[in-house]
Amino acid sequence: MKIGILGTGMVGRSHAEKLAVLRHEVMMGTRDVAKTLAMSEPDAIGNPPFSVWHKDHTGVKLGALAEAAVHGEIIFNALNGEAAVEALKKLESVLDAKTLIDITNPLDFSKGMPPSLIVSNTDSLGEQIQRALPRAKVVKTLNTVNALLQVNPRQLADGDHDIFVSGNDVSAKAQVIRILKDSYGWKNIIDLGDITTARGAEMLLPMWVRLWNTLQTPLFNFRIVK
Amino acid sequence: MKIGILGTGMVGRSHAEKLAVLRHEVMMGTRDVAKTLAMSEPDAIGNPPFSVWHKDHTGVKLGALAEAAVHGEIIFNALNGEAAVEALKKLESVLDAKTLIDITNPLDFSKGMPPSLIVSNTDSLGEQIQRALPRAKVVKTLNTVNALLQVNPRQLADGDHDIFVSGNDVSAKAQVIRILKDSYGWKNIIDLGDITTARGAEMLLPMWVRLWNTLQTPLFNFRIVK
Repeated sequence: MKIGILGTGMVGRSHAEKLAVLRHEVMMGTRDVAKTLAMSEPDAIGNPPFSVWHKDHTGVKLGALAEAAVHGEIIFNALNGEAAVEALKKLESVLDAKTLIDITNPLDFSKGMPPSLIVSNTDSLGEQIQRALPRAKVVKTLNTVNALLQVNPRQLADGDHDIFVSGNDVSAKAQVIRILKDSYGWKNIIDLGDITTARGAEMLLPMWVRLWNTLQTPLFNFRIVK
Repeated sequence: MKIGILGTGMVGRSHAEKLAVLRHEVMMGTRDVAKTLAMSEPDAIGNPPFSVWHKDHTGVKLGALAEAAVHGEIIFNALNGEAAVEALKKLESVLDAKTLIDITNPLDFSKGMPPSLIVSNTDSLGEQIQRALPRAKVVKTLNTVNALLQVNPRQLADGDHDIFVSGNDVSAKAQVIRILKDSYGWKNIIDLGDITTARGAEMLLPMWVRLWNTLQTPLFNFRIVK
């Protein structure tokens, strides 16, 4: 399948690597291709510059955001949370009625650690993106776990933990659930309901960052016991 | 031990019943004793009026908020989230340096179901109460599970799920953790850190209410898989 991944950071790279290994045709999109390729320093959390990563992942193409959005039959949003809505709005015509998997968290690091949320209690980034792109089929998922767990959940407790999906379009959610199961190996997927339920998933983040600090590892997840 | 429970709703009653069975001297506090005793109709979610419940729990005393606050060596806040800070502020001198276990959720039902949160993303009810009562030792806990599970966690998966505590005072947290373990039977208690971590615990609620709807039972809980 042709897949477009918007964003070239740690989250985008996790998905690109995994999907390329699975023989999908992956194009990553970035705001400024030349700038992304010219970066020579690790990012703030120590990830290597894109060009270094790309040498080991030559099967993954890089293009402008609009090129990746045109390329993909399915699109992943792994852009920075603060810039995502504005960047996606410009892609409205090319994203059109495509399934857009929104992994991004609306984190505000401007006041230091731990981050707070950019959105209010009565909104979510998932909803903002759906409002900005009314014809796209936005499915919020995977934002509640670390990038490495997102694409390889069985590295933790053999996958015995839960992931959530939120979205208005039932067939798009079913398509995303198939990817989560068949490509990534997720066993337990909880459909929370429409895109407004992304509020719940995004508001897990303040707990997540505190648990990260308490547990001293990002490789953990929530399991719902019932 | 002498225990004061502020609030006579479902949450306060769960704790009063459990603690009275365990031979603690429990006094519940209400804003208006005569009005609480005069109520003759079930509440909005079908709980019997206080006087009906009280007939089966005659070991539990009822008094004004200030009387219950004076009575207790330890105080539970089970007041309505929207009114809690104002009501507690009036009790500042009697609460003084006592341990105040804050179970209350800052839920806003004014826009219908599901509720949103009253507080902003950069604050919590736990912090608001601590600021209102600077000498009290506020410990946020139990707000992430249903009232019946709070006092009897082993009814679900033999207690194999997690509860969180947040608070600035280390010895008050240790005291609360002993109650959670010894009186209620909690096995897995995660100390998130200072009272600012109550944001994470309170922001689980938007997920909780959606899961309640999805799972069709309030008897579930989060477990952290690591």
